[in-house]
Amino acid sequence: LLLVRRKSFEEMSCSVAQCLEVVGEWWTMLIVRDLLLRVRRFDDIQERLGISRNVLAERLDHLVAHGIVERRPYQENPVRYDYVLTEKGRALWPVVTAMREWGDQWAAPAGPPTELLHKACGHTVHVVPTCSHCHAELELHDLRIIAGPGADPAQPVVPVDATV
Amino acid sequence: LLLVRRKSFEEMSCSVAQCLEVVGEWWTMLIVRDLLLRVRRFDDIQERLGISRNVLAERLDHLVAHGIVERRPYQENPVRYDYVLTEKGRALWPVVTAMREWGDQWAAPAGPPTELLHKACGHTVHVVPTCSHCHAELELHDLRIIAGPGADPAQPVVPVDATV
Repeated sequence: LLLVRRKSFEEMSCSVAQCLEVVGEWWTMLIVRDLLLRVRRFDDIQERLGISRNVLAERLDHLVAHGIVERRPYQENPVRYDYVLTEKGRALWPVVTAMREWGDQWAAPAGPPTELLHKACGHTVHVVPTCSHCHAELELHDLRIIAGPGADPAQPVVPVDATV
Repeated sequence: LLLVRRKSFEEMSCSVAQCLEVVGEWWTMLIVRDLLLRVRRFDDIQERLGISRNVLAERLDHLVAHGIVERRPYQENPVRYDYVLTEKGRALWPVVTAMREWGDQWAAPAGPPTELLHKACGHTVHVVPTCSHCHAELELHDLRIIAGPGADPAQPVVPVDATV
């Protein structure tokens, strides 16, 4: 058991912090992973993750409140719900995929537990980050983070000489 | 204050879980963000995040233990350290970048706090996920997750008919 004081990230002028505010709780990204895999029933997610019902219910409420998940009734008396990702929730797939690829490379001594099949070309593939302007493959050292239009001068994210 | 029981994700045969085991604690991804921005001094990170010294020290110890961060002495008597990402740590940049881009799109009403400059082409860009085999741009519905060589039959990640 840990005693943890949760400071909200909501006031931080940083998009990484805003993403974490929504999906940064322990367990939440694995719930999103299961929803991306179309596991939609409370009991199925609970069984797959081995998580307590209380914690799962609390996390799903949080995701619903933030517009990541919507409840769809599939039965009445008593009403039962499927949990389905919204467009905002599905947009998290690059985050989950980047985590998976990192884990495959750095923490999967027995080989990747899963692989990504690209339906159009039929191959098992990796995701290659490329530039939206010149289409070149991107590496960390190719990039520089600069202040954007939503930067808060009182709370600058970017220090001098930042690379990413 | 929350009472949280931390179940380790280490036993899970899932690369997303393995990534979360290393960087899934509240605060840790923001520490990695600052390290990617080359903020390397304990006091600087502490001030930027407004985090307690205890929590920051604990998180940095965890990152050092997992080979994400290394300490580099920059002074003796008393010894003081810079905190620098290892190769394994720098490899997290696509995760941080995917979080940032999600936050920019879905949780930045005043506009993106930061932007990504591609040094080679000189433009402010986004990261476009593409296929390592056919180089096409990838969307969620283009992909199917399948079992990989490291899949644990007792603990399959992929349910029937999964998309990602």
